Amino acid sequence: MIKNDLFLRALRGEEVSRPPVWMMRQAGRYLPEFMALKEKYDFFTRCRTPELAAEITVQPIRIVKPDAAILFSDILVIPQAMNIDVEMKPGVGPWVPKPIRSAADVEQVIVPDIDETLGYVMDAIRLTKEMLNNEVPLIGFAGSPWTILCYAVEGKGSKSFDTAKSFCFSQPEAAHVLLQKITDTTIAYLKEKVKTGVDAVQIFDSWGGMLSPEDYHTFSWPYINQIVEALEPMTEVIVFGKGCWFALDTMAKSKASALGVDWTCSPEIARNLTGGNITLQGNFDPSRLFTPIPELKKMVHTMIDRFGKDKYVVNLGHGILPTVPVDHAKAFIEAVKEYEGK
Amino acid sequence: MIKNDLFLRALRGEEVSRPPVWMMRQAGRYLPEFMALKEKYDFFTRCRTPELAAEITVQPIRIVKPDAAILFSDILVIPQAMNIDVEMKPGVGPWVPKPIRSAADVEQVIVPDIDETLGYVMDAIRLTKEMLNNEVPLIGFAGSPWTILCYAVEGKGSKSFDTAKSFCFSQPEAAHVLLQKITDTTIAYLKEKVKTGVDAVQIFDSWGGMLSPEDYHTFSWPYINQIVEALEPMTEVIVFGKGCWFALDTMAKSKASALGVDWTCSPEIARNLTGGNITLQGNFDPSRLFTPIPELKKMVHTMIDRFGKDKYVVNLGHGILPTVPVDHAKAFIEAVKEYEGK
Repeated sequence: MIKNDLFLRALRGEEVSRPPVWMMRQAGRYLPEFMALKEKYDFFTRCRTPELAAEITVQPIRIVKPDAAILFSDILVIPQAMNIDVEMKPGVGPWVPKPIRSAADVEQVIVPDIDETLGYVMDAIRLTKEMLNNEVPLIGFAGSPWTILCYAVEGKGSKSFDTAKSFCFSQPEAAHVLLQKITDTTIAYLKEKVKTGVDAVQIFDSWGGMLSPEDYHTFSWPYINQIVEALEPMTEVIVFGKGCWFALDTMAKSKASALGVDWTCSPEIARNLTGGNITLQGNFDPSRLFTPIPELKKMVHTMIDRFGKDKYVVNLGHGILPTVPVDHAKAFIEAVKEYEGK
Repeated sequence: MIKNDLFLRALRGEEVSRPPVWMMRQAGRYLPEFMALKEKYDFFTRCRTPELAAEITVQPIRIVKPDAAILFSDILVIPQAMNIDVEMKPGVGPWVPKPIRSAADVEQVIVPDIDETLGYVMDAIRLTKEMLNNEVPLIGFAGSPWTILCYAVEGKGSKSFDTAKSFCFSQPEAAHVLLQKITDTTIAYLKEKVKTGVDAVQIFDSWGGMLSPEDYHTFSWPYINQIVEALEPMTEVIVFGKGCWFALDTMAKSKASALGVDWTCSPEIARNLTGGNITLQGNFDPSRLFTPIPELKKMVHTMIDRFGKDKYVVNLGHGILPTVPVDHAKAFIEAVKEYEGK
């Protein structure tokens, strides 16, 4: 089976000699090898070409050697498949030419056939699994329905997604129809990914932390939970809600295998809010990778001591920054491996 | 003295018939009367011309009738006075042509004479106090040193201020020198504002929530606390740290009169974290002002019930959005006034 199964064992809550480690957005951005491919192929070409996606996925496994791979893709392939145009504008980020602003717009959104629209992702998974040769597990992922709605309605990235929120608060019925369509698509998509070979899935609720606890429990969590319930019988599910410390108690009562935590929530508070029994993942501040290496490694060891080595997956608290020196990224991973036997 | 002193009484923890209300960034943005002035005068002209700043400050007092006025100004007048060029680019926001990136850059930053550099703010205060005619108190404000550093180093607004954070984490000594210079300037500036006539001051730590609790207690809180300690003998001090729920317990032990809370922290958790004795201010999600008016008013009443009517100042959890209809802004204020006698 999988030779290094530390990651899966930690998700199942089994005792380990050291916690596993991977980094959010480890596939891409900070690696010169990735930048070379970026020069030649635009963003969605890299997502849609199985050979490129697979190559980008395994690059960090060769170079920085984490304990799990995460498929190179994007959360916005889902709205694309649902008949919502999404472009990636260099220097700007995601761009939706016709954002959704009304019930009529929501009606135009489809729940697509996954094979027809996202078959290229399954091809990338098959190729990646071959290349990984069972060395480490492969993680598949999707955005949370709320986070996808944010882009589909706002039309672009934003500091606070006020347009998306105003849409939900002034037209809640239309918002819920859209959220359910995204949920149905995401469930079918992730199930297909698991059947094709991913060993675990992560749901990214990047913008859940923009909501009040009440609104989070209205517009985000119920849809995430539908996905968790649908996928849990098939695979391990990680839920990462950036800024969602206020919902950790609810999340801990769900069927998720693990919960992601960002760096504003201390290990002690995260353990306390989640009751101490569920696996946690996180939460090194990505900017803290700029810390001089000896101090950086000490900080990683302190973080492990504070979370505890079991029921814990070492990770960043959000995506790695493109400007991080590769030797600092390597030091982060090495520090975790050096923890063994400490 | 001041005819409507509800706001000051709430800050002092006195019993009130209903909580006072004001809105962050109520001076400007969403009012057509403000937009008319914006057409004619650029941002810093409005800040620097006492007649304009005073007029913009009192506009909401006439139109939406909150219980306190806040001087129209900007947190970035401080770096400007410190020899750091800051422009306001339409459609972009704050722009620092020569951002601070090294110890040598920090050396060029001065602690200025307040009268020479920021006398125009004092003129605006004098004029505003005349125009307010003791109807309601006037709030003065400043950014937290950390938040000012964010702009001075990043050079512009940002979702995560990674450049500013990397600077602090890789060159902490230079960062602390800069933070102390900003702190010294801010203390002198706020003292002068109080002497000139403001009735309370608020410190905005807009970007404190980008830091881990440890880093917050290293790079933000100690400097805010210096300001609190320096100003507390003269006036009431409110500290608002957006996203800083994790530091509310520390803040509650300081000499601040009140703490601002954003909408991701529920009233119950905010009261619990702060021990129940300090006045809290907040925390309506600014996007929630788009809710239909009858439901909006109910939500305001529920919020007051949850915080409790005493030791509480009704406010938004961050600045009002420019796109909010004026009648919704008015309904927010009215709902608080209608709470009386409920």
